[in-house]
Amino acid sequence: MTTDALVLDAAAQDLLFREARTANTFTDEPVTEEQVQAIYDLVKYGPTAFNQQPLRVVLVRSAEARERLVQHMADGNKAKTSTAPLVAILAADNEFHEELPTQLPHFPQAKDMFFSERPVREQSATLNGALQAAYFIIGVRAAGLAAGPMTGYDAAGLNKEFFGDGEHSVLAVVNIGKPGEDAWFPRSPRLAYDEVVTTV
Amino acid sequence: MTTDALVLDAAAQDLLFREARTANTFTDEPVTEEQVQAIYDLVKYGPTAFNQQPLRVVLVRSAEARERLVQHMADGNKAKTSTAPLVAILAADNEFHEELPTQLPHFPQAKDMFFSERPVREQSATLNGALQAAYFIIGVRAAGLAAGPMTGYDAAGLNKEFFGDGEHSVLAVVNIGKPGEDAWFPRSPRLAYDEVVTTV
Repeated sequence: MTTDALVLDAAAQDLLFREARTANTFTDEPVTEEQVQAIYDLVKYGPTAFNQQPLRVVLVRSAEARERLVQHMADGNKAKTSTAPLVAILAADNEFHEELPTQLPHFPQAKDMFFSERPVREQSATLNGALQAAYFIIGVRAAGLAAGPMTGYDAAGLNKEFFGDGEHSVLAVVNIGKPGEDAWFPRSPRLAYDEVVTTV
Repeated sequence: MTTDALVLDAAAQDLLFREARTANTFTDEPVTEEQVQAIYDLVKYGPTAFNQQPLRVVLVRSAEARERLVQHMADGNKAKTSTAPLVAILAADNEFHEELPTQLPHFPQAKDMFFSERPVREQSATLNGALQAAYFIIGVRAAGLAAGPMTGYDAAGLNKEFFGDGEHSVLAVVNIGKPGEDAWFPRSPRLAYDEVVTTV
């Protein structure tokens, strides 16, 4: 561990990365609106291209909505998605470019210069929405909660069920709460530095 | 600021999100190999689907490689990419599934069950590679450095120039270093909580 090269304190490193784990079971302690607001107020500052902000978050709180969600999840994800204190659907808004003139005030013409074509917008919304999804997961951990991100679901079904406008693409579904009993598998390996990083 | 709802200490919040900014100019203080290793050793633990690890990082350190990189950058990005102490090319390895049997030891059959088709792999590598790219940017900030992520470049040109095997897709190019003079624009707005988060 070469943590001397980092400025971030060791407790924060542990909270966000080293000790944090993807939880598969949760206690029944609720996740409050105040916690989600604090998470968003922190992670909204994460950087994206052209300050685009395609991420949309649907908090599934009612029993009726939970049922509608669970039916589209893969079998292996149904139980935990049914029992997590809070489930968030993270999606990309492929029409994010409409907001660029107000969100990028020093370069409002970016909207028409770069994003007039839907396939380009969609690709950009997916990439930058995924960056924002990662910031959100880090934010959940910053609130002392465990995140259980999943991509095992019927994406077309979820898009239609929760958006239905053809303009949103689900990126991930995230179970959120305090970890419960036997919350995780043993940690899986990670690639070595030399397998990932090369110098030219 | 409802920071009481977060466990992460305020200094870490500032370092990673609130005070951190996308830098456009840098001092000439080098970014060391030790720093990049510490960044990777921290952010490698960020969660992805099936513990896939498609992210690849090319550190552009030689003058010759820097020149090859800059020629593919958009005009507005050439100056800062030429002068940043370190530039990292972040790419997704679309053949990441070859590593699943060793990286996901409790479910090695995931490789063939889910990722036998290239378009599925590519979509997964892009999404999960982008998650890992965001963790990497957070890691750069954890090292007390500024990151300047960019997507303005000729992607096909970069893929060919630095990989050439048809198996990698560049996700972002990131300038890294200590911020220099007039390093950033005034911070652009962010969407309000109610514009991003809905409850059902």
